[in-house]
Amino acid sequence: MINSNDINGKILFQDGGHQFIWLGADEVEEQGVVQTNQYLIISNGRGTLVDPGGIHLFARVIALVSRYIDLDKIDNIFFSHQDPDVSSGIALWLGVTKAKVYISELWLRFIPHFGIVNQDRIVGIEGLGGSLKLAGSTDLKLIPAHFLHSAGCYSFFDPVSCVLFTSDIGAAVFPTGNQYIFVEDFDEHRKIMEGFHRRYMSSNKAAKKWISKLDGLNIKYLAPQHGAIFKDENVKKFLDWFAGLQCGIDIIDEIYE
Amino acid sequence: MINSNDINGKILFQDGGHQFIWLGADEVEEQGVVQTNQYLIISNGRGTLVDPGGIHLFARVIALVSRYIDLDKIDNIFFSHQDPDVSSGIALWLGVTKAKVYISELWLRFIPHFGIVNQDRIVGIEGLGGSLKLAGSTDLKLIPAHFLHSAGCYSFFDPVSCVLFTSDIGAAVFPTGNQYIFVEDFDEHRKIMEGFHRRYMSSNKAAKKWISKLDGLNIKYLAPQHGAIFKDENVKKFLDWFAGLQCGIDIIDEIYE
Repeated sequence: MINSNDINGKILFQDGGHQFIWLGADEVEEQGVVQTNQYLIISNGRGTLVDPGGIHLFARVIALVSRYIDLDKIDNIFFSHQDPDVSSGIALWLGVTKAKVYISELWLRFIPHFGIVNQDRIVGIEGLGGSLKLAGSTDLKLIPAHFLHSAGCYSFFDPVSCVLFTSDIGAAVFPTGNQYIFVEDFDEHRKIMEGFHRRYMSSNKAAKKWISKLDGLNIKYLAPQHGAIFKDENVKKFLDWFAGLQCGIDIIDEIYE
Repeated sequence: MINSNDINGKILFQDGGHQFIWLGADEVEEQGVVQTNQYLIISNGRGTLVDPGGIHLFARVIALVSRYIDLDKIDNIFFSHQDPDVSSGIALWLGVTKAKVYISELWLRFIPHFGIVNQDRIVGIEGLGGSLKLAGSTDLKLIPAHFLHSAGCYSFFDPVSCVLFTSDIGAAVFPTGNQYIFVEDFDEHRKIMEGFHRRYMSSNKAAKKWISKLDGLNIKYLAPQHGAIFKDENVKKFLDWFAGLQCGIDIIDEIYE
């Protein structure tokens, strides 16, 4: 269970004008709807929303975001990929902010099917040269996570907070009533990650390729879009486990009944 | 260019009470929005909609469907996967029909993020035992197409019309003003398929696995969600080409810049 103090969000990192915020949880868990994490980065008074989610969550997320920053100070909305739980609220978010939306260029021609009009506000990540500039001097380092699971997927590292946002990598599916914010016991947590990763992630080769891009990063938090956040030694435990996982194409005979 | 006689749809197959219908095209092509095909199967007076698409297309598709069948006679809506151009109109379609929606169980917990309320009307394909019953005696043979590109994707074969619906497999990206319904020159058409398949499809291993499931089917039409429809000898030409394609994970070093 999430502590009632944390239900409306938790600041993972704060120093000077920089904050990395986990945007809370539903007070009552909904049956049959996958749990998601949303994040907000505030840098010198300007905001970046990370995978803010679909129509379904819009009211809750907007209320929580507003506790930390005015909506008109949100400059960037980052979508790691095209799934409904990530990006289907795009038309609503474009309506209430002046932000630009960033997503892999693989999905630029697909997301107008959500019903958006102004394509000038949607930017393909590939054109950014590997980084997304926040207000002030901070650049998010954009790290491709293609085929994990989406064909066009991005994670990123924030070098100020040392948070690695991982999209669906590191996702867990909590049993009802058992959500928690941080991974405490890796071996226990692994049990609620394994099924998801074996089925949705495309292959060990893709996992290893992504991990190779993390070389030299001082990762203190690994923050996924579903499940719990990994801290400190659990970051390395997760990466070691993921590097050895057989999944997707590797086990395709099991998956195709 | 699509002939003006066909802009509102074309019946691919008709015999007795069974029709397989391609649901037409936009009169004016939209820039920056991927072209999509929608299909309607009518079997003994009852309808099955195939990948009817997002919010963006809803008005056009509903108008075209209504030329062929009353909305209250649509029993089934088949979603091959979770992408916005396939399934983001789900709440609207549930509102105007009494249909049940069928999609891979991998996405059952994700699509409520589009904003749907009644989950009782959404059925996981894995529970159907490999076939979807239409009105009368016709069963669609459901064929997994996982990782092509979506982690949970389905194609199907209609044994009455001999149409194989393939989702994103066989997709093409038309140059502006050059859409056509049927592939005429396979080698020319290959040029507008290759880039898409190399980048979105996850691996040759997945392609071969899917092709192995087509053994023994008498496929007369191969109907994708984007691009043009393959007929007769072009069906085999496509399958031979796809069986030999290196894509996704196979060429991951090229894809990760």
